[in-house]
Parts: sequence; structure tokens; C-alpha cells
Amino acid sequence: MKISFEKNSLMQSISIVLKAVPSKTTLPILECIHIDATTDVVKFTTNDMELGIKTNVKGEIIEKGSTAINAKIFNDIVRKLPNNTITLTVDDKSNANIKCGNSNFNIPCHTGDDFPDIPSISQDKSMTISQFVFKEAINKTIFSIAPNDNNKLMTGELIDIKDGNMRIVGLDGHRIAIRNIKVECEENYNVIVPGKTLIEVSRILSSNLEDNMQIYFTSNNILFNFDDTIVVSRLIDGPYFSVNNFLISNYATKVKVNRKDLLDSIDRSSLLISESDKKPIIIDINDGELSINVASTLGSSSEKLDITKEGNDLKIGFNPKFMLDVLKSIDEEEVTIDLINAKSPCFIKDDEESYIYLVLPVNFTA
Amino acid sequence: MKISFEKNSLMQSISIVLKAVPSKTTLPILECIHIDATTDVVKFTTNDMELGIKTNVKGEIIEKGSTAINAKIFNDIVRKLPNNTITLTVDDKSNANIKCGNSNFNIPCHTGDDFPDIPSISQDKSMTISQFVFKEAINKTIFSIAPNDNNKLMTGELIDIKDGNMRIVGLDGHRIAIRNIKVECEENYNVIVPGKTLIEVSRILSSNLEDNMQIYFTSNNILFNFDDTIVVSRLIDGPYFSVNNFLISNYATKVKVNRKDLLDSIDRSSLLISESDKKPIIIDINDGELSINVASTLGSSSEKLDITKEGNDLKIGFNPKFMLDVLKSIDEEEVTIDLINAKSPCFIKDDEESYIYLVLPVNFTA
Repeated sequence: MKISFEKNSLMQSISIVLKAVPSKTTLPILECIHIDATTDVVKFTTNDMELGIKTNVKGEIIEKGSTAINAKIFNDIVRKLPNNTITLTVDDKSNANIKCGNSNFNIPCHTGDDFPDIPSISQDKSMTISQFVFKEAINKTIFSIAPNDNNKLMTGELIDIKDGNMRIVGLDGHRIAIRNIKVECEENYNVIVPGKTLIEVSRILSSNLEDNMQIYFTSNNILFNFDDTIVVSRLIDGPYFSVNNFLISNYATKVKVNRKDLLDSIDRSSLLISESDKKPIIIDINDGELSINVASTLGSSSEKLDITKEGNDLKIGFNPKFMLDVLKSIDEEEVTIDLINAKSPCFIKDDEESYIYLVLPVNFTA
Repeated sequence: MKISFEKNSLMQSISIVLKAVPSKTTLPILECIHIDATTDVVKFTTNDMELGIKTNVKGEIIEKGSTAINAKIFNDIVRKLPNNTITLTVDDKSNANIKCGNSNFNIPCHTGDDFPDIPSISQDKSMTISQFVFKEAINKTIFSIAPNDNNKLMTGELIDIKDGNMRIVGLDGHRIAIRNIKVECEENYNVIVPGKTLIEVSRILSSNLEDNMQIYFTSNNILFNFDDTIVVSRLIDGPYFSVNNFLISNYATKVKVNRKDLLDSIDRSSLLISESDKKPIIIDINDGELSINVASTLGSSSEKLDITKEGNDLKIGFNPKFMLDVLKSIDEEEVTIDLINAKSPCFIKDDEESYIYLVLPVNFTA
């Protein structure tokens, strides 16, 4: 096999497929990029057995063939080579030579045959969405999922498509993040996608609103198709939590407040709370004013903010990190917070419910 | 005590004195910034008992007094406060209140009396040098000192002022870095300054060639005076190594090579050498060409570079990191490497000897 690449496009293709190379594995072949130059197009594939990525690579095939080359070493070498034509030659004994100008690297490879291909998905029923819109919806909900899999369902996000609305939901038992997006899709789908898949996909997606992607669904897999790349991921078995049960609406207090001011005040207040402390911040809501009070072994602080309030006064405690995560993922200048009482969740959402964030309060001793 | 500050200048002053706050200490008072507002000028002092910093701070003294406030907490709070006037009030019981707009923080402090003042140095005999020139000389030699103090002398740098020349030397037993600077100074001085002091001072110094600093010497201390700040440091007891003994000049091979090309080639070659390996790169010098060869368990590589050569051919092994450190700290487009044989150090220096770098070779089995 012999292929020549231009450095920059090769680097870009490697960085896409690197997202599905496992950091730890007992199978050395999974640490490789499968390079397929048996047809007229060069294809790179990686597969960590949950997530698989295949991308078409710009390159001139001088001699057909295939191989599997260690992804990390290949990436390290290519990144440091001069900005020039890079020629990859692999002989019959799976020895790769990477040549660029006066630089020569020889690396042992695996035969391409050993590499586990990614599942083939029939690409007939699909939906189309802007890459940027999907990426944003992921980035603005994914912080709410659980980091470890004590409960597998909480490590994924629900993608629920129904009657032209795509709802993306992440939750971890303390909070729920929901984004609703209008989509053109005749079918209904309800799948739970691993958080890791969504994080890696969102990293590859374009930030250009005009660039679209296609999403395909099967009972076990989801496939994302964009630009010259497909990403295939296993799904998490459902059913997901009945989120609607939590979205009650008999609010007793409604607060409108400047988002940035509230964010900064909570950020400052959390300075005196050490990680190990797990102390809440106490939010005190009165007519026209919201105050945030913290007392810890390090000292005490108080912050005051002008607000518009309807309904009852309320004193309620929160984990400051959960409030900060929500406020950081909203773009609006002003946010509306709906509250019930000191033991019930608060809701931060806009009128159209394009976003709904629910945060459970923390008990405090006043 | 009551002082009002503008946020930005307060932040800048804190960041200067933070450099002498120890990260670990058994004396809580050393984790503090001493704030002295007993005269007409606000002064901040920090002291880790080896290095001490005192800086004049822009602030309006409303009520005179002094205190010692935890540096980390004070810094964290000030950084996050709005860009506005910050008022610090400390009552008789050493409780500090930090107020800015609608934010209020209350922090317990220490009385200023407990704080160990930095040594007072008579500021008569001094030398003047550009802050930028001194900073550069430190940054371009300090990588050669030893990180831990198996040999205390190697953790510092020699500052040797003699007949209008300042020579700065760092070495760790495997390499020597020397910078020579012309200075106007009638006295001769020869001191060993702790590496930590030089690193912290160089971080505070201005990058403007026009800004000068004064340096004062005593038998036990060195004092740097610049802008509104003084830095005082203990010295390391000498005598230092007789560096001149190493600076032999019976070279057998002289190589001129493009610095950036050599840097990039060594950088790439080191990719196949893992930290634990400790394998050298092998440099092969012939007429008109230098090649760099590496063979490891990961694979093999070769790099070829055009050079101008005088003298004998030579094959010599080096720790790639040591060569990279040197090549990164030279600005010239071309470097000259003088060599003797495969067992003797190589010298990288310019004609005026404004820089001299010596690197010991590594044995290799060909």
C-alpha cells in the first residue's frame, strides 16, 4: 500500500477518528486507525466497540492496500512533520514507512484484516438537522448527566423526536436539563445515546449554522452522517425516566433576574465553600431583592441583587455548581426562575420552553 | 484600618506579592499578605523566609492600620469582584470586611504584628540593568539548573559581575548554560541566587527594554528593586563550580546548521523515545550532511539536514531534551556547534560568546 497526503488534511482526518480510539484497552488493534485504500477512496476507521468513526480522507492512492497503524504514534509523527506531502508506504510484512522531505519513520503495523469493522446501518430513514444546532443542544445539556455508571441510564441522554419536536434530556438525580428543537421529521424516535458518544460527536461537528447532518436510527444503534464522516454508536437500553412527571407547574414564586449578575454573585459566593464542605448557598427571595448568603469556616459573604418578584417570599438552599452550570448554558440576558417551596425543585426556563432546567434544592439549617 | 482600592491595580499588586507566598508551610502567617497602611503609602509584603517581596500599592487610606490576610482567599475574592472600587476594612478583632458594590465578604485575619518582616538591606552600592535583558538572561539559562537539591549549588544560578560583564550560569552536571551581558558596574560581585528566586523575579519583571531595575548585593542577600517593588532573597553559600575549566576550545569538528530545522528534526526524532527508555538520539556528522537516527521498540526514524562542516566526521549520542532546551533558547537563525569527540561535551555558542551552552554526550552502542 502506498498513499500520499497533504499534511494539513491528513492531520484533520486523524483528529476526527482519534475520538473513537480508546485510551485504555486490552486489545492493541483498537488503538489503531484502520486505513483502507482498497477502493478509489482512502477511508480511516476507528472503533472502541461502543463508538465507531469512519471518514473519507483526501489522499492519492499510488498502490492499493489496507493496514492498521497505531493511532497515537501516527498522530504524533504527522503533527510534527513539516507542512508538506507525506507518503505512507506499507510493505507485505506490515512495516509502515512515513516519509516527508528528509524525515523517515518506520513503524510496525497490523494487517488491516484484524480490525473490527463498525456495524453497517441501513441508511434509509433519516432526519436532517443543522450541525451547529445539534452541537449546541448537546453542549447545553450534557453537564447534567451522571459521570459514572452506577445507573447506566443517567450516563446517556434521551433523544426524543415526536411530532416535529426533538427533545434532548440529561439528568443525574439532582437536576434535569432539557432542550427542545423544532425539526422536520415525519417519524417518531425515542433513543438513549451514551454521553461519551454525544461529547465526541459534538467536538467534530461544524460551528456553521448552514452545515447540516443526517441522523439515522435503528433499534440498537444511532448513526450520524456529516461532511465526509459517519459516526456509529450503540444505544443504551431504555426505557428512560418519565421526565414529564417532574415538570409540575404550580409555582408559588416567580423571579426575573439578570443572568450575568446572578452567575457572578453565585460564583463569588461559592469561593468560601470548599469542595469537601458540601455546604449550600442560601438564596433569600424578597420583594425586589434577592440575597445570597454563605457562612463557612473560611468566613462569610453576602450578595444582593435587584429582581422582579411575583408570589411568596422564599429562603432556599442550592449546590452552587448546579446553578452555575445552568446559568452558563443560557444565552439570554434575563432569566426566569420558578419556585414552589424550600423542599421542591426550581425551574429555569424560557416562555417557549426551548430550554427547561430543573435543580433540586439542598437542605440547610437556618 | 480602612483602605479603598481600584480592582485592577489591587489585582496587579496581589499577583506580584503572591510569588513569595509558600504553597506549603506549617506557619499559617506565611500564607498571608501583610498589609501596612500605617504610613501614607499602602505596602503589601509576603515572605516565605527565603524570598520576600514588598510592593507599594495604589490605594486610598481612609483609616490607618495594618493586618495580615490569607493571600489565596484575598486573591480569589478580589479576582471575582466586579470591576469597581473595593473597600477593605479591618476591625480591632482582626475581622476583615471586603466590600464592592452589593458584595460583602467577612474573613478572619491575623494582626500585622506577627508577620516576619523581610531583611533590611542597605541600598547604597547597586548596579542598574534593563528588566527585559535580565529576564531574558534568566529564562535562557534557568532550564539548566537541577530541579531538586541533592546538590544545593546546582539549584541556583551564578551571577558573576566582573569588569563590566555580567555572567549568568546554570548547570546540573549534564549541561551548562551561560549568558554574558555588558553592564555598567564598577564593583565586582560573585553570588549564587536560588533558582526559585530568579524564576519568580523574572515573572514579575517588565518585558519593556526601556524599564530598568537596580540590583543590590550583600554577603547573604540580593535585592532587586524595580517599579514600586523590592524583592529580597537569601543567597546560596558558595563557592560555585569553576566553570572555566570546562570551557576548553580544542575543537575537532565545527558544524553550522539552521537552528529551526535542527530543532524540528530532534523534536520529531524524540517521538520514538519514551521517557523510561532514556535512549539517546544518534547524530552522525559528515561532509555537508548531518543525520539523526533513532531506533526503539516503537520503530525507527532518520532525519537528514544540510550543514556546513569543518574538521572530522563524528558520530555522537545526546539526550534529545538537553539539545531541544538549548536550541529553543537561541534566537539566531543559524547555530554553530563545536565538538571534540564522542565522549566529550559539545558547545553551542555565538562568536561574541553572548551565549555558551555545553551539553555532555550520552554513551550509545552502535
